Amino acid sequence: MAQDMTLLWGSGSPPCWRVMIALEEKNLQGYNQKLLSFEKGEHKSPEVLDMNARGQLPSFKHGDVVVNESYAVCFYLESQFKSEGNQLIPDSPAEQALMYQRMFEGLSFYEKLNAVIYYEWFVPEEERHDSALKRNREALATELKLWEGYLQKLSSGSHLAGQSFSLADVTVFPTVATLFRFGLSAERYPKLGEYHALLKERPGIKASWPPHWLENPEGQDALKDV
Amino acid sequence: MAQDMTLLWGSGSPPCWRVMIALEEKNLQGYNQKLLSFEKGEHKSPEVLDMNARGQLPSFKHGDVVVNESYAVCFYLESQFKSEGNQLIPDSPAEQALMYQRMFEGLSFYEKLNAVIYYEWFVPEEERHDSALKRNREALATELKLWEGYLQKLSSGSHLAGQSFSLADVTVFPTVATLFRFGLSAERYPKLGEYHALLKERPGIKASWPPHWLENPEGQDALKDV
Repeated sequence: MAQDMTLLWGSGSPPCWRVMIALEEKNLQGYNQKLLSFEKGEHKSPEVLDMNARGQLPSFKHGDVVVNESYAVCFYLESQFKSEGNQLIPDSPAEQALMYQRMFEGLSFYEKLNAVIYYEWFVPEEERHDSALKRNREALATELKLWEGYLQKLSSGSHLAGQSFSLADVTVFPTVATLFRFGLSAERYPKLGEYHALLKERPGIKASWPPHWLENPEGQDALKDV
Repeated sequence: MAQDMTLLWGSGSPPCWRVMIALEEKNLQGYNQKLLSFEKGEHKSPEVLDMNARGQLPSFKHGDVVVNESYAVCFYLESQFKSEGNQLIPDSPAEQALMYQRMFEGLSFYEKLNAVIYYEWFVPEEERHDSALKRNREALATELKLWEGYLQKLSSGSHLAGQSFSLADVTVFPTVATLFRFGLSAERYPKLGEYHALLKERPGIKASWPPHWLENPEGQDALKDV
């Protein structure tokens, strides 16, 4: 089915996971794929740089067409394979608006998560400040309360843009799963906990679950007090 | 035409400008609008917070539908008014892929610009480091070379995703214009200079040019050596 597609990816990377979920949902299994290691610096290898001048994963190719940015791949796949697998952009204007809105708010959500869990990775030792990390944690807590509120307004069992699973879920779920992997408390954030529990059983999400999370189901606890 | 739309915006904000360009291109003039001042903190006023819990501009409403994220508004308008004004998503799969790719790379471009020109705005005084600002400037220079290269590969007079003006231009042009407003050298970056010169004459862009740039045509020179 998808033999003319190639994906280079890293395990546990939310952007890579978004692409893999979109591929599953559009029924595009059987693509060529290669799991690379960020730790070994393989995202800067010639193989990646050849497809992606930024040296980032995911790197994705369909025939001669290269699309690397995860949101770009999601839009591209939905547009090119509209009638295959699950429809990922709802028809109703109101649901569509909500989907777009949540998708792009999802970028802030992801960024605020990273600013906490990868603070030491992003900031050289001599430039680190407890005050900055504290502010980042507070910004993440504020963001989490926003999303908890968004979910509260939806009827139970809903997806981010309403009744049906959409690109908003494709792009935001990997952030939510990473939050819980890093110890977020489902007692403090019950609606996010419910959403996580609902979607982690979805076939397209199960099939693309990060392999190193499966190998080592114990996560971290960096976010347990956020 | 667009009397059921309301836009709250700030002058010179690239996200606000994206929305205004999209509205112009889709022929949706005549919307209700209010120019607010970031300096006076009006983006945190009750009027904004009522539409946008993040207290950010743009804030946009179409009938009862609120969409605030600038990329979300662009997608929403193109989807809801597909056959009005200019078509902003190309038909060909290759151009579409390139458009999505450049749009989302555009977010990195914008972020790298901000990390230089708003460094002091984002980082409290006691957390600033010359080493960080230097790294941010280098990252911006690397990014600029990437875009210069992208434009070099296109035929002269092209837009970011090929022959026709698209959402890639709607979203990335305000970043490019801001670069030149802050003193970027068109001698160092001739292709970006050419792209800027071409698009600033486009009617939808002229009509939405930031009013305080018109009032005070003299920009800054923070980026002249980048």
